[in-house]
Amino acid sequence: MIEKVIENWHRHLKGEFPGGLDELLADDVVFYSPIVFTPQKGKEITKMYLGAAGNTLGGDGKQAGGGESTFRYTKEILSGNHAMLEFESQVDGKYLNGVDIISCNAEGKISEFRVMIRPLQAIHATHKAMAAMLEKMQGSRG
Amino acid sequence: MIEKVIENWHRHLKGEFPGGLDELLADDVVFYSPIVFTPQKGKEITKMYLGAAGNTLGGDGKQAGGGESTFRYTKEILSGNHAMLEFESQVDGKYLNGVDIISCNAEGKISEFRVMIRPLQAIHATHKAMAAMLEKMQGSRG
Repeated sequence: MIEKVIENWHRHLKGEFPGGLDELLADDVVFYSPIVFTPQKGKEITKMYLGAAGNTLGGDGKQAGGGESTFRYTKEILSGNHAMLEFESQVDGKYLNGVDIISCNAEGKISEFRVMIRPLQAIHATHKAMAAMLEKMQGSRG
Repeated sequence: MIEKVIENWHRHLKGEFPGGLDELLADDVVFYSPIVFTPQKGKEITKMYLGAAGNTLGGDGKQAGGGESTFRYTKEILSGNHAMLEFESQVDGKYLNGVDIISCNAEGKISEFRVMIRPLQAIHATHKAMAAMLEKMQGSRG
C-alpha cells in the first residue's frame, strides 16, 4: 500500500500529480514538525506546513532567488504502511540532512507525516526560514 | 540481512548480546550525530557516541538518578540493508522523539548509524546532556 503512496508523493514533488496534496492526504492527517512539539492536526494545517517546508528546503524544486534546488532523497525504506525517506539539502548555505517518516491509512491516504532534521546548525537555519515562510503564507491569506 | 542485525541490536540494549558493540559494529562504521555536522568515523568513536547517547536518552535502561527509563521504540521499518527505528523518550523532563537510521554491510555489521531528533526543545536538552556526558567519559579516560 505504501509503495503507491510514495510513488504519488514523488510525482507530486515533480508537479506531475494532478490531485496534489488534497488527493494525497487523509482528512485527519497529523503533521509532526522537526521544530514544534505540538502535533498539527488536519489537512489544511498540514498542507500549509508541507508547503512551507517545500519552499524552505527546496523540496518542490523552487528556491528563494530562483536558484537550482539542492534537495534530493538519499535513502528510501518502505514496509507495510510506513515509509522513511532520507534527504539532503541546503538551507541558508548550510548542509541539511533529514527524514520524512510517512504512514498511510487503509484507504491509501497519508495519515501521518513526521519530519526530523540534523545537524544543529541546519535546524536553527530551518527554524528561522520556516517561521518567516509561515508568517508570509498566513499574511497573504488574511 | 538487516533483520538479524536489528534483532541483535535489541538484545544488546537489553544487555543480552554477549559481543556488545564490538561485535555489532563494522571497523569502519560512521556515526552521524543529531547535533554535530562532522561524521564520526571508526568503531571507537562510534562506541563512545552510542554510549553517551544511551546514557543520555535512557536507551540502555539506565538514567542519571537511577530512575526508570522512559525510552521505547515506537516504529520499525526494515528493508534490504537499511533499518529505521523511531523512538520516544524524555531528556531533562522534556518529550523527545527520534529515529535511528541503521545500515549494515555484506558481513552483517553496522556500517552506518545516524540519529535525528525532534522537537527543538528536546534537541537543546540533548545537546546539553550529551556534551556533559562526553566530557565526563573523555575525562575518565585521560
